[in-house]
Amino acid sequence: MPDRDRIAARLDALWQIALGPAGGADRPAYSAAEAEAVRMVAGWAAEQDLEPGLDPYGNLWALPPGDGSVVTAGSHVDTVPDGGRYDGALGTVLGLEIARDLAADGIAAGVLVCAAEEAPRFGAGTVGSRQLVGTVDDSDLEAMRDARGVTAAEAREQYLAALADLPRVAPAPERVRAHCEIHVAQRPELRELGVVTRVASPRRFELRIEGEAGHSGEVAMEARRDALAAAAEVILAVEAAARAEPPATVATVGTLEVSPGAVSVIPGAVRLAIDVRGVDAASLDHVEAVIREGVAIICERRDVAGHLTLTRAGEPVALDADLVAAALATAERLGVPARATWSGAGHDAQHLAAIIRALLLFVPLHGGASHTPQEGADMDEIVQATAVAVATLAAPGA
Amino acid sequence: MPDRDRIAARLDALWQIALGPAGGADRPAYSAAEAEAVRMVAGWAAEQDLEPGLDPYGNLWALPPGDGSVVTAGSHVDTVPDGGRYDGALGTVLGLEIARDLAADGIAAGVLVCAAEEAPRFGAGTVGSRQLVGTVDDSDLEAMRDARGVTAAEAREQYLAALADLPRVAPAPERVRAHCEIHVAQRPELRELGVVTRVASPRRFELRIEGEAGHSGEVAMEARRDALAAAAEVILAVEAAARAEPPATVATVGTLEVSPGAVSVIPGAVRLAIDVRGVDAASLDHVEAVIREGVAIICERRDVAGHLTLTRAGEPVALDADLVAAALATAERLGVPARATWSGAGHDAQHLAAIIRALLLFVPLHGGASHTPQEGADMDEIVQATAVAVATLAAPGA
Repeated sequence: MPDRDRIAARLDALWQIALGPAGGADRPAYSAAEAEAVRMVAGWAAEQDLEPGLDPYGNLWALPPGDGSVVTAGSHVDTVPDGGRYDGALGTVLGLEIARDLAADGIAAGVLVCAAEEAPRFGAGTVGSRQLVGTVDDSDLEAMRDARGVTAAEAREQYLAALADLPRVAPAPERVRAHCEIHVAQRPELRELGVVTRVASPRRFELRIEGEAGHSGEVAMEARRDALAAAAEVILAVEAAARAEPPATVATVGTLEVSPGAVSVIPGAVRLAIDVRGVDAASLDHVEAVIREGVAIICERRDVAGHLTLTRAGEPVALDADLVAAALATAERLGVPARATWSGAGHDAQHLAAIIRALLLFVPLHGGASHTPQEGADMDEIVQATAVAVATLAAPGA
Repeated sequence: MPDRDRIAARLDALWQIALGPAGGADRPAYSAAEAEAVRMVAGWAAEQDLEPGLDPYGNLWALPPGDGSVVTAGSHVDTVPDGGRYDGALGTVLGLEIARDLAADGIAAGVLVCAAEEAPRFGAGTVGSRQLVGTVDDSDLEAMRDARGVTAAEAREQYLAALADLPRVAPAPERVRAHCEIHVAQRPELRELGVVTRVASPRRFELRIEGEAGHSGEVAMEARRDALAAAAEVILAVEAAARAEPPATVATVGTLEVSPGAVSVIPGAVRLAIDVRGVDAASLDHVEAVIREGVAIICERRDVAGHLTLTRAGEPVALDADLVAAALATAERLGVPARATWSGAGHDAQHLAAIIRALLLFVPLHGGASHTPQEGADMDEIVQATAVAVATLAAPGA
């Protein structure tokens, strides 16, 4: 059985490693704080007779001795700036509980904690798991820089050096029959255990609009080629395109820069980023087509140039259907309220799914928004999720 | 008669003082380059027996000896970054020609060149003329800072120190019966000499919209309180409000900042600036009312907070009707194509009008946009404008 006090104490130990200005957990990707958290988890793993070691990407493997088949559980220990107590930490702490309970039942089980899952520092995310499956390589890390100009490659080197006392291991995905990541939910609507069937992956675009700058007092409205007014139409078109789709499809304009950006100058150019997500590829394709057509129509009507570039070609990922069915059946058998759901955010499990059968479970969110210090979760629901994971991974099919 | 070669040579001498990265005139407000231009103009004025001196605000007065009644002409010699050959410089060089021609006719005439007319460096404009008429005081200059943190007060002190060799004089508006500023037009539509009847003054607003930030993949479209989507509606409402008014009424959103401004985060807050201009106060009032109502409706419907603040309460200024009528009649008599027009941009003449009868003439724009290195003007039209100014200021009523 998972130990409530141990879970709470370990979550608190991770939380206390480094606190941000707003009082939240502050363990950026590849930071000294992430390294300290990994060392802490490695210590806990060793206490339950697992063999912790770091792979070349900084991911922590803590498997039973030998080279036999295993199941694994885990998440990540880095955080967004001023993040929450549960994001990543919960799945990591529960990974240890799951491995312990499975071992008690005679099932070989270990822990896998991926590095640099939250990497807004480098404008990226899930770096460790994507390196593991080969979709991000070391040259990509050379190109990622934080605000101080440090590359992700340099930061990872420092992180590995800070953990020089941990053994180095080769990644061992071939030993893993199935992996489970438990994560605190990010949508407040989810009020039961969520068994994730599909994970969205962002499809991103950059749009540059080039109009004509001019004096705000000396160009008639009819003569203007205002890049920001065109961008405003695009923003509303993006919103409308997503609203016309099923609820899991969303689209966001999160950044916008105006040039020259003076109160008395008509905007000559605008650059903005569009993020489209969903778990239905056909719906994403439709939104993309509607946005492309909208941009073309708006820019032609306003006599401005629109340059729309795909910057990330994300496709939704389907997780292992057998594990989903097994987890839902297990939850029903254990009397745990559960439902199939999707993830709009990215998780390591969706990348690991390319080489390992992966299960992703969401524990309902309480108290405050995800990625904030107020983020909360309920211990009864945490214990229930752990029990479902253990029973699912213990089943003969897993 | 104005001397074409002298006009061209002087425009070129001012142009050559400092060139910006794009090859345009680069004489920022209170800079060493503005000071050098003022010294050059003072030298030219002394050659035609005027007595140049700086008032405490940095404005150059070059009047005939004595304390008798005079007419004046002039403009400014500072520029926007990478500005044009004619903006300010034209009216200054022609001020010397006008004073010379009037003196030849036995009419006492001088030159008035106002400091810091183009002050985007400090987020301001027409500083010297507004100081002269008392609507900007020294404490306002303490509050204006450039990008390097230098206050306008410090910059003006350095500028005055750089011109320590010039005499200091008290402002003498009481000696001036009438003042004429010739300026290159900023609207390309004006194809004749423009006699300005009214000058717009910007009415400016800051709008802060506060919605709710959230993960771009984890908040359903219907649950969003996206500050940027609300701002997009406001931008289009501002544009529509001005389009419904007479052509001289315009409205612009020139700046917009998104917070937190990340591609995967729904915008939680937006700050933008609205600039409304026109020469009809009732039209401005109507646009303001429509914008206020639009902001309220948009923000209520989207469940975001909108804080609209008036940051500059500009009202249109009517220039001296008798001088306008005299200039139009003079143009007709001299066979110079001319029309009454308005100015959407601010000029020193509109501020001087509070204490001096002021005439503002526009020479048609050729070749490229105002405030750019391509800005052009035609020498025949320049000479015609000068002749109209001379004859208007020479008339008994002036």
